[in-house]
Amino acid sequence: MKTKYRTHTCGELRITDVGKEVKLCGWIQKIRLMGEQLTFIDLRDRYGITQLVFHSDIVNTSLYSREGVLQAYGVVIERESKNKNIATGDIEIDITEIKILNESITPPFTIEDETDGGDELRMKYRYLDLRRSIVRKNLELRHRLAIETRNYLDKQHFLEVETPVLIKSTPEGARDFVVPSRMHEGEFYALPQSPQTFKQLLMVSGFDRYYQIVKCFRDEDLRADRQPEFTQIDCEMSFVEQEDILNTFEGLVKHLFKTVKGIDIPELSRMTYADAMKYYGNDKPDTRFEMKFVELNEVVKGKAFKVFDDAELVVGICAKGAAEYTRKQLDELTEFVKRPQIGATGLIYARHNADGTIKSSVDKFYNEEELKKWSATFNSQPGDLILILAGTADKARKALSELRLEMGTRLGLRDKNKFSCLWVIDFPLLEWNDGDPNVLASLAGRWHAKHHPFTSPKPEDIDLLNSNPGTVRANAYDMVINGVEIGGGSIRIHNKDLQAKMFEILGFSKEEAQNQFGFLMNAFEYGAPPHGGLAFGFDRLCSLFGGSDGIRDFIAFPKNNAGRDVMIDSPSAISDEQLNELHILVKKENHA
Amino acid sequence: MKTKYRTHTCGELRITDVGKEVKLCGWIQKIRLMGEQLTFIDLRDRYGITQLVFHSDIVNTSLYSREGVLQAYGVVIERESKNKNIATGDIEIDITEIKILNESITPPFTIEDETDGGDELRMKYRYLDLRRSIVRKNLELRHRLAIETRNYLDKQHFLEVETPVLIKSTPEGARDFVVPSRMHEGEFYALPQSPQTFKQLLMVSGFDRYYQIVKCFRDEDLRADRQPEFTQIDCEMSFVEQEDILNTFEGLVKHLFKTVKGIDIPELSRMTYADAMKYYGNDKPDTRFEMKFVELNEVVKGKAFKVFDDAELVVGICAKGAAEYTRKQLDELTEFVKRPQIGATGLIYARHNADGTIKSSVDKFYNEEELKKWSATFNSQPGDLILILAGTADKARKALSELRLEMGTRLGLRDKNKFSCLWVIDFPLLEWNDGDPNVLASLAGRWHAKHHPFTSPKPEDIDLLNSNPGTVRANAYDMVINGVEIGGGSIRIHNKDLQAKMFEILGFSKEEAQNQFGFLMNAFEYGAPPHGGLAFGFDRLCSLFGGSDGIRDFIAFPKNNAGRDVMIDSPSAISDEQLNELHILVKKENHA
Repeated sequence: MKTKYRTHTCGELRITDVGKEVKLCGWIQKIRLMGEQLTFIDLRDRYGITQLVFHSDIVNTSLYSREGVLQAYGVVIERESKNKNIATGDIEIDITEIKILNESITPPFTIEDETDGGDELRMKYRYLDLRRSIVRKNLELRHRLAIETRNYLDKQHFLEVETPVLIKSTPEGARDFVVPSRMHEGEFYALPQSPQTFKQLLMVSGFDRYYQIVKCFRDEDLRADRQPEFTQIDCEMSFVEQEDILNTFEGLVKHLFKTVKGIDIPELSRMTYADAMKYYGNDKPDTRFEMKFVELNEVVKGKAFKVFDDAELVVGICAKGAAEYTRKQLDELTEFVKRPQIGATGLIYARHNADGTIKSSVDKFYNEEELKKWSATFNSQPGDLILILAGTADKARKALSELRLEMGTRLGLRDKNKFSCLWVIDFPLLEWNDGDPNVLASLAGRWHAKHHPFTSPKPEDIDLLNSNPGTVRANAYDMVINGVEIGGGSIRIHNKDLQAKMFEILGFSKEEAQNQFGFLMNAFEYGAPPHGGLAFGFDRLCSLFGGSDGIRDFIAFPKNNAGRDVMIDSPSAISDEQLNELHILVKKENHA
Repeated sequence: MKTKYRTHTCGELRITDVGKEVKLCGWIQKIRLMGEQLTFIDLRDRYGITQLVFHSDIVNTSLYSREGVLQAYGVVIERESKNKNIATGDIEIDITEIKILNESITPPFTIEDETDGGDELRMKYRYLDLRRSIVRKNLELRHRLAIETRNYLDKQHFLEVETPVLIKSTPEGARDFVVPSRMHEGEFYALPQSPQTFKQLLMVSGFDRYYQIVKCFRDEDLRADRQPEFTQIDCEMSFVEQEDILNTFEGLVKHLFKTVKGIDIPELSRMTYADAMKYYGNDKPDTRFEMKFVELNEVVKGKAFKVFDDAELVVGICAKGAAEYTRKQLDELTEFVKRPQIGATGLIYARHNADGTIKSSVDKFYNEEELKKWSATFNSQPGDLILILAGTADKARKALSELRLEMGTRLGLRDKNKFSCLWVIDFPLLEWNDGDPNVLASLAGRWHAKHHPFTSPKPEDIDLLNSNPGTVRANAYDMVINGVEIGGGSIRIHNKDLQAKMFEILGFSKEEAQNQFGFLMNAFEYGAPPHGGLAFGFDRLCSLFGGSDGIRDFIAFPKNNAGRDVMIDSPSAISDEQLNELHILVKKENHA
């Protein structure tokens, strides 16, 4: 770390260095003038903070300001009052000469872990935001996770192969970003939504084990945790069954927890998609806590309570130790489930009191004997709170899933330092697209691949492809950690005819399939091996390891929710000269 | 490497495994039917080849074809006739059961190191071309170089930080690829030509040491060794002088040679740009051999030989041991330098014969005494051949540089297994752009940054910025290996006013500079540290380590010289629905 400018970093000197002549460089974190005699400066760099001390006759500190850049010469001395909070806290530098390398005007927000800068300001001045050690540490964590991922996969004989970024538009999933070609008039490249077809071609090529930490692109209407460009750990293996892939990547995640966080995680449990939906209402259940769904149709129907009698599904959860929730708290929960994005019409509850009695919000319809049946079904104990929703099965489960997570949060069951990892398996192969805003409108009213069009149906379900496509299960799997889908993949189709059949089910004409994916189907004619793989969302993996809900602070230069980089002000207009060379015109739209 | 499909790879079994029951998967490299009794199959995967042997009653081999995929069960036995050329050559597998996992039609070319496939066919079926071990090994080398680059830089405390791919168009250098925005009508992202401004912002952020192995994009008219997307090892450091950077990355290259090729390379020599041009006519001299330029104006002028008398520069080389070149060989050399892309008008030579006499092609003008002076200037020895060109200084040097390389090749002085590495330093800051086809036409007739607009002039030359910009030297450097520019970089400007001055010299108006690079100049107001860096061309580095002249076979899925991926057929037309959503029209041009 020694350079022509410095002998040490600001995080390096210790009591054993006392007496050494040193040269440090860094930013002014803080200046303290102790009367006329003494000045203290906290000098900061990536590696730490070192205290400089000097008599004020050495320099005119009026020129100094927070975030200015200094080069300081001096001798390491022992501090009188040591600071146990920083690694260099035993020493300080007795300054003999100091040089301003660059000045700073006053930053728009404080460069501290707890800053006064709002989100917009932080993004506009991201280069200052990144000075905050709390943000920089996120990116150091990201670096460490990437290095350890590569170490593990390299040891497992995976080859990192770079696949192209300028590819071909195949907008069957989300929308593509496209790039007009200057050399080929009227033609466009597209940016990859994933390297899916290329990694499969590498398997056809006999590469056997491939990975890549790679940027991918989706032109989506953005949600809070999505970015138009994002990073995947993308992997593929040949001559494998699902079991091989699950074991290999369970190994990766264990390695990452062990080496990066020092945590030994237990063997991952496995849950079918059907069970995840039945017991958690969600294909990415947060299994840090139980609170499984209990279905009540058998128990509650036929007692003249219309809400339950009319419902396709009555389903509830038992919140341990929440019986003493106040009326106000219960009203909050009712408001919570009635919000439009959750969409329940109401919430039924039953308190299993400490004295053993059970009181529900629908006592009019259910006597104590009935409520005892409820209790038995939920296996509730004195002190527990039963919460019940009713409606169509899909809606009731979705709403109850949100309520379950809310109760988990309220009861402190979602500790960010606790990790619960599992595989969700046996996903459905297809889902019906009845108008997804992130997909071209022309693709609505069709079957849509739940994972992607290259995913293999389970051999035992292939016969259902014609008769009942919606029930066909795929050899597809997701890794879920703390309720977040961290990765997912599938065993692929490696047979040309089955792949053609799949495109047909997805509504591709033969010409469309040949035009967009002909190269892959042709490749399958030349000895494609059985293969499969998966991809991890690297941004999310980083934020999970960093104990955060959002991915944005784990990306050095993220875009905002409108897909805009407010720091560099992009996207932006380009010159007519550029447009001309690219053979395109901007369409002036009539917004009237 | 064990999976549900196989117990071992095809490269794994040894004599010590004899007796084991195994299961192998791979591709049929070769089938040999030895009469009715015995069949041999060479089964291939990424890891090697294993011989299978079976009696023909086990399977109907008429279904088998080259490149089909098999799963074979059997017992490892010792071979009678061992094959010393392959690692598994001591054993073979006595097959008990065999299964066809996938069939193959006949490939369009043979999957052998020496293939019968031409370039176009190989690119169209790149997935088959990649099966050839000679091509796959290039990509394995690439993987190894990337891993070792990261190992070295990680140990030196560099952080890998991903910078964005969707950025802003700043077409001051080469042309940008652009990406129309769906959400922001009439606006465009651009793909980065390099992460230059972002890595500088990371230095402003205090990241201290950054690197990234990253895809970059240039919309250029392609030459043989260029690709529209290419990969850089991109690096930046703070609080450094040029010396620090040269030492750090000399260390990287030594590490790569040592770990990947087992070669200890000596300390890199350093040559100024001025010397490189004077002695090699080239800013990337191939220093595997000497044959330096010798300037002859003082020696040859004033002897009535008009070609020399009229020339700005007379300059030559001495080719050791080539005095016996035949007339035919000398004519070839003359033809070589007269080719339009080299552009000399003729070639003068002088043979220093074994008997000590000197005979030139211009004996009419130069007597023996004069020729002795030539010999003394070149320090030629009996047996050497002197080759001389004349003309304007630039043209003569450029042509002689080509001739020198040609002579180096002819004399066997350019061994691909020998490596000569050096730094070329003190590049000029600016060069005059009088119409570069790879730059927007509107930028011609201006000073152009030789490296890029962020490169720092040498402090002692700053005064020349106004008076004589063309003579200002930069703190810029290239690493050159075997005549190839492998990497280059500079110390950057970190002062806002100097950066503004630089943009002014490059012909930017204040508004243009602010519009395109305002974020960087603003960042310089908040305490930018002194910093500098460099980038290596990773594709070229791989091809150099692989002993090849071209980069294409070190890229898994390269584009052809027209920027087209012939395998996936990209670029291609996109749908009107896509164009509409992106607010653009394809311009129908009138080519009449």
